[in-house]
Amino acid sequence: MQDVFVVGTGIIPFGKYPDKTLADLGWPAVKQAMKECGVNSTQIGAVYCGTALGGMLAGQRVMKMVGPTGMPIINIENACSSSSSALSQGWMAIASGVHDLVVVIGVEKLTKFGGGTLPLEREDWEVNQGMVMPALYAMRAQRYMHDYGLTIEQLADVAVKAHDHGASNVNAQVRKRVTRDEVMKSRMVAEPFTLWHCCPTGDGAAAVVLASPRLARQLGAAAIKVAASEVTSGKFTDGFRDMTWAELTHRGAQHAYEMAGLGAEDIDVAEIHDAFTIAELMYYEAFSFCERGRGHELLASGRTSLGGDIVVNPSGGLLSRGHPVGATGIAQAVEIVRQLRGDVGAHQVEGAKAGLSHATGGGVAGYDHGACSIHIFTR
Amino acid sequence: MQDVFVVGTGIIPFGKYPDKTLADLGWPAVKQAMKECGVNSTQIGAVYCGTALGGMLAGQRVMKMVGPTGMPIINIENACSSSSSALSQGWMAIASGVHDLVVVIGVEKLTKFGGGTLPLEREDWEVNQGMVMPALYAMRAQRYMHDYGLTIEQLADVAVKAHDHGASNVNAQVRKRVTRDEVMKSRMVAEPFTLWHCCPTGDGAAAVVLASPRLARQLGAAAIKVAASEVTSGKFTDGFRDMTWAELTHRGAQHAYEMAGLGAEDIDVAEIHDAFTIAELMYYEAFSFCERGRGHELLASGRTSLGGDIVVNPSGGLLSRGHPVGATGIAQAVEIVRQLRGDVGAHQVEGAKAGLSHATGGGVAGYDHGACSIHIFTR
Repeated sequence: MQDVFVVGTGIIPFGKYPDKTLADLGWPAVKQAMKECGVNSTQIGAVYCGTALGGMLAGQRVMKMVGPTGMPIINIENACSSSSSALSQGWMAIASGVHDLVVVIGVEKLTKFGGGTLPLEREDWEVNQGMVMPALYAMRAQRYMHDYGLTIEQLADVAVKAHDHGASNVNAQVRKRVTRDEVMKSRMVAEPFTLWHCCPTGDGAAAVVLASPRLARQLGAAAIKVAASEVTSGKFTDGFRDMTWAELTHRGAQHAYEMAGLGAEDIDVAEIHDAFTIAELMYYEAFSFCERGRGHELLASGRTSLGGDIVVNPSGGLLSRGHPVGATGIAQAVEIVRQLRGDVGAHQVEGAKAGLSHATGGGVAGYDHGACSIHIFTR
Repeated sequence: MQDVFVVGTGIIPFGKYPDKTLADLGWPAVKQAMKECGVNSTQIGAVYCGTALGGMLAGQRVMKMVGPTGMPIINIENACSSSSSALSQGWMAIASGVHDLVVVIGVEKLTKFGGGTLPLEREDWEVNQGMVMPALYAMRAQRYMHDYGLTIEQLADVAVKAHDHGASNVNAQVRKRVTRDEVMKSRMVAEPFTLWHCCPTGDGAAAVVLASPRLARQLGAAAIKVAASEVTSGKFTDGFRDMTWAELTHRGAQHAYEMAGLGAEDIDVAEIHDAFTIAELMYYEAFSFCERGRGHELLASGRTSLGGDIVVNPSGGLLSRGHPVGATGIAQAVEIVRQLRGDVGAHQVEGAKAGLSHATGGGVAGYDHGACSIHIFTR
């Protein structure tokens, strides 16, 4: 197995683009990533495209814009971790020596489908009973508040931090700072979540170019190493579930740290799956950034805010940058790679040497059963 | 890169199961494949699931039945070559040494969705103008008849052979022999195709277990080697297209032959993508089983029928076994592996030593643009 490097990154500003096609969204991100490292379409060995609701042949529709040269294009679906799972396959394609250069795309258009997950809902009795994502995470929040003394004010501060970070990210969907009071007074979605506790629905696309050590050197690009690539799925445990513990993410994190030869203390910056405020606190704990039940204390310490030593979601995360399901994983990777290169602009984490991205999907029917994909990047 | 072996196979009889869920279809196939080689769920390193229209987290929904142990589950979509593309990823996962045992699933339920491809149709002006699959292949048939003197009677004989083969396959959706006259007199679909020239719509599932050399030996199973695994996508050529030449398949076949160190003359049995009668003849030529424009002569020679030296679609192919889009690639792999082991029953190709499977998808908008996946198996 050889090392794998990210040599190019691309992303479009996330938002609502009801009149654009999936290709209209995806192609500018791919073009940007290719331009950044100066590769042309004949050099691409394979394309992996992650999308959850984009319909058939999403990657082919995007790459049609470049006039592909016959390279394999493979589409990956894993709910919210679709493009992070695609990244894992792209990593494997290069690590194994099968390819020298791979493009990985994350693309999604939720304004077209209204964000529904119909195929799942029809078969899943828990979802049919109302266990949709906001309800699921609301239950986790309630339990966490009960068990660990988290207050609703402290929980609101997750949204305050996210929007504080995202306000300076030109690619964020919601670029508006909010106060704790505004979060508290916005309309109720699922107790205890008001609107600002929930990520917005929107469209987006991002892309990365991965290269072998040989090609990365040849391109002379600012190469960032993929130090760990990990996908895990759930255990489908019957009976009682510990709602405040993200078992799947914790397991994936342990594998990823081991693969990278790093520990939680080595991570300078992280993009984690904060679809709802409580998620960020739970994942602090799953990634061992703090002890169980102490997530809100870590947040309050300021260590995870810009200027801290373990900055979480400098891009604004899902809450501010947005969460077009299949696009999220690669958007996170783009953010971390640019952070490590030191060229993100206003929300730069100074001197970051190691970062991680984390997308987890398919939380219905025994939450965390779908897939969790974690990547660690180093410079 | 290490060798990869197929150690287990499973398939359900293809047909119409409107009341079953995707998991109801997929799980029996997985269970059969696991039982065949005696592995349990804790031994599975990863699961790849191919589906085109199955909705989110198809693989997770199927594997939930076994109570997965947390292994990565990744869903692959590539239209008609969804599960053959999944097979290529499973192959890579073992060839690279990342995993020792991988389950690959193909599963689809078309009775639920009515076989539509809405997301593509909305964005594709050629499809919007009526260039759906039967129309596309009908144009190819018309051109082939014009260029090479193929008669409609000769073309009907492809369907006669398919159903002759499929009639003895217990897993085929349409187990009924037809005469040339019956094919000619069935209702018109798209000139020159009557109903029997077209594959049926239905539901189905199939699975294989792949293993490393070490584990294949340990399991003591009748292991069949994956000698080549190839995915290619289209070139999106503008302007005139040579409608009678399957460029994508030919290119993939050349790569696959090279990878396996074999030539067309070494292939004893093949499962190829006969979604419509003309396709079989075109693919004979793309695989170099005969010269261009001579497909109908090869068919008439009887060499591709049971008892011949290069038996094509002994299972009945897409025309008879059926074509639940995402399930087809693995169904073909199951057929070839069982043929090489010598245990398919009535439609056995005696003494077969090398076989290939071929699924190609996404023929709209510059046909053959989607993906073509070819595998060669040897014993």
